[in-house]
Amino acid sequence: MKNKDLIKELSNRMNWTIGETADVVAALGNIISTKLSEGDSVYLDGLGQFETKKKGERISVNPANGQRYLVPPKLVAVFKPGGTLKNKLKEIDTNE
Amino acid sequence: MKNKDLIKELSNRMNWTIGETADVVAALGNIISTKLSEGDSVYLDGLGQFETKKKGERISVNPANGQRYLVPPKLVAVFKPGGTLKNKLKEIDTNE
Repeated sequence: MKNKDLIKELSNRMNWTIGETADVVAALGNIISTKLSEGDSVYLDGLGQFETKKKGERISVNPANGQRYLVPPKLVAVFKPGGTLKNKLKEIDTNE
Repeated sequence: MKNKDLIKELSNRMNWTIGETADVVAALGNIISTKLSEGDSVYLDGLGQFETKKKGERISVNPANGQRYLVPPKLVAVFKPGGTLKNKLKEIDTNE
């Protein structure tokens, strides 16, 4: 489901215009990514928690010339599904 | 940031009531988790993609009695941060 289709479905459910709905989804994404970049985690009821994890620096090798170089440490966003979402997925038959 | 504070900040930005804002966030979470449970992935502009991954069955051991048992296969929700979020986190000084 693309962002466009998500907006459409949400606007139908809320009985709002596409424009209003797109605005609120964009604002939500902006708040979450801003909080993450400030080192804060964000919990969304029904979904789960967004947080950041620090990946340490590591040495990698350029396969073209065999040269070793340092990959600097970085922050990556991770998502931990909450109980509601986990339970919803638990009901799915994984043997299909 | 708890769900309550997220709603509050979003309602301030949109100039909506807490009630309206809570409704749209709940509806959004519901759409995303429903799509995931239907095997669909969901892309949110500015954040990234939610999708499911199948974890195969595995054998585990009960440490209390040494008995081995089968953990059934299950679906877990995973999140892949998009470019905008990755770039936002790249600007952070990880050496703090």
